[in-house]
Amino acid sequence: MTTPSWTIGIDLGGTKMDVGLVDHKGKVHNRSLVPTKAKQGPKAVVDDIITILKELLPENIKKDTLGIGIGIAGQIEKKTGVVKFAPNLGWVDFPLQEELMRQTRMPVAITNDVRAATIGEWQYGAGTGCNDLLCVFVGTGLGGGIVSGGRLLDGNSNTAGEIGHMVLDIHGAKCTCGNYGCFETFAGGWAIARRMKEAIAVDPTQGKLFLEMTGAKTVEDVTAKHVFDGDHKGSIIAKKVVQEVHEALIAGIAGLVNVLNPQRVIMGGGIVQRNPDLVEVIRNGVPTRTLKTASAGLEVVQAQLQGDAGVVGAAAFAMHTLEKKVLS
Amino acid sequence: MTTPSWTIGIDLGGTKMDVGLVDHKGKVHNRSLVPTKAKQGPKAVVDDIITILKELLPENIKKDTLGIGIGIAGQIEKKTGVVKFAPNLGWVDFPLQEELMRQTRMPVAITNDVRAATIGEWQYGAGTGCNDLLCVFVGTGLGGGIVSGGRLLDGNSNTAGEIGHMVLDIHGAKCTCGNYGCFETFAGGWAIARRMKEAIAVDPTQGKLFLEMTGAKTVEDVTAKHVFDGDHKGSIIAKKVVQEVHEALIAGIAGLVNVLNPQRVIMGGGIVQRNPDLVEVIRNGVPTRTLKTASAGLEVVQAQLQGDAGVVGAAAFAMHTLEKKVLS
Repeated sequence: MTTPSWTIGIDLGGTKMDVGLVDHKGKVHNRSLVPTKAKQGPKAVVDDIITILKELLPENIKKDTLGIGIGIAGQIEKKTGVVKFAPNLGWVDFPLQEELMRQTRMPVAITNDVRAATIGEWQYGAGTGCNDLLCVFVGTGLGGGIVSGGRLLDGNSNTAGEIGHMVLDIHGAKCTCGNYGCFETFAGGWAIARRMKEAIAVDPTQGKLFLEMTGAKTVEDVTAKHVFDGDHKGSIIAKKVVQEVHEALIAGIAGLVNVLNPQRVIMGGGIVQRNPDLVEVIRNGVPTRTLKTASAGLEVVQAQLQGDAGVVGAAAFAMHTLEKKVLS
Repeated sequence: MTTPSWTIGIDLGGTKMDVGLVDHKGKVHNRSLVPTKAKQGPKAVVDDIITILKELLPENIKKDTLGIGIGIAGQIEKKTGVVKFAPNLGWVDFPLQEELMRQTRMPVAITNDVRAATIGEWQYGAGTGCNDLLCVFVGTGLGGGIVSGGRLLDGNSNTAGEIGHMVLDIHGAKCTCGNYGCFETFAGGWAIARRMKEAIAVDPTQGKLFLEMTGAKTVEDVTAKHVFDGDHKGSIIAKKVVQEVHEALIAGIAGLVNVLNPQRVIMGGGIVQRNPDLVEVIRNGVPTRTLKTASAGLEVVQAQLQGDAGVVGAAAFAMHTLEKKVLS
């Protein structure tokens, strides 16, 4: 039996839903991007997926399609594909896999969106040919995916890779997760904005200058994007905040390199995509804080899939789960 | 072909060498414990191993022996079994595996001592039946071993598990590794002693009381053992240092639980063995700092092999490497 030519990849977010037909080389062909009707509940979202699939999958292609892979921002029960909790969608205990299999009569595989992106980079992006890699996604939050010895780690309850909630400062500030001093409180987008707001409060004169430079209307409007923008435009206080972000990324990733000994660190996420110079900062900085033996031969590279990461990653997860080749 | 009944396990340390004949249930039968002639160089150590093996392995048993497993405090090249660097032994680039295979004509498998202890606990100790576990060994240093998805992680250059050098305080004190704020600078035995010495300098009156209580002759003589002893005997400053150790172990392990999502955390090493109450402190504390989803169902238990860990772990490593059943 030959391997089917196509796999459906779905990146299911709280605001938009990205569905694509992906070939065996990780290339996206037909594609559909629509708003997610999160507020109307899971049934409306599933109905939309079914409608899109009918458009994307004429019968002749459906016959030659392996199945459907979904990456979703939330916690998934590995065995059943039940979405235990997806705060952005407002879902609790929704049996997405069962529901989609029933309606499509196709195999369905569901995973966390960060892990999907990790598999995408591993199989089709910056991680190809590498058995030991750490993906670090710096966006609003700070997420991660770990491939070790040629296997993606999922852990006991399918939550492995939550690197943003590794403690980086035992005496540190409160995190959105309830813990204190998490890596994310230094380098997640929300935290970068929070640090900038604090810096503005401490130095209102420089703060005013920063707001003018970046076009942020009020202190409340400041985002991580403004912070990096302010740094590029010469704001002294933005520069200081960005330097702290650098230090945190270096220290956090160095610790993970010591713990996991990856061959390659892949830096992705919106903040890295908009500030690719971060990759070199991390490449140069990490070896200054690691055991020499742990970072021998370490490569630090930028993620490659960019906007395709969600769809390609979800499809790649389906390929490897449904084909039972790599993942257990 | 039936599996051989016996495996040799060798725990090769800088001061002593522990060699045992281990059966398939992880039980140590004949055993020999001798000082390591580290100063006389690798040849003297290998000669001693050969002499001991002749005693422990009469021909009829040798025929029924799978091979030799060695756990050593140092960095091992996975493919060749070359000891790249073993500071306690003073070895650099010594081809131990090749040399022992040549002289014994038996298969030899070599790994890091911490990783050997992890496999020992996993196969024959507190980790049996568990596919996702984290071993934390608190001794003079702070070492770790990670089993994820039923595989021991070794990483790209065979150094995975160096949890003691994860950054726990980005603004923290210098570590022996050259980095700053490592987990080990809070909870490794050497660091606990250092923190106590600092506490004595700050409060000489309480410091004097502490020295009297614990029988430590001078400040320079203070070890981690004195610190825990002082805490039990009511020293205020020792209590404070021990509380800081608790906080650090909780924060550090919580971060690792978020990153790795183990089912079980196994606490071992000399300091835990002498202070088993640490296990409960960690069991109660870790879930207060983890994502709920990451610590759902988490068990925190004490290591079981104790004094046998080195020999049993080395033998277990050999069994699983040489039989190619579990490890790749």
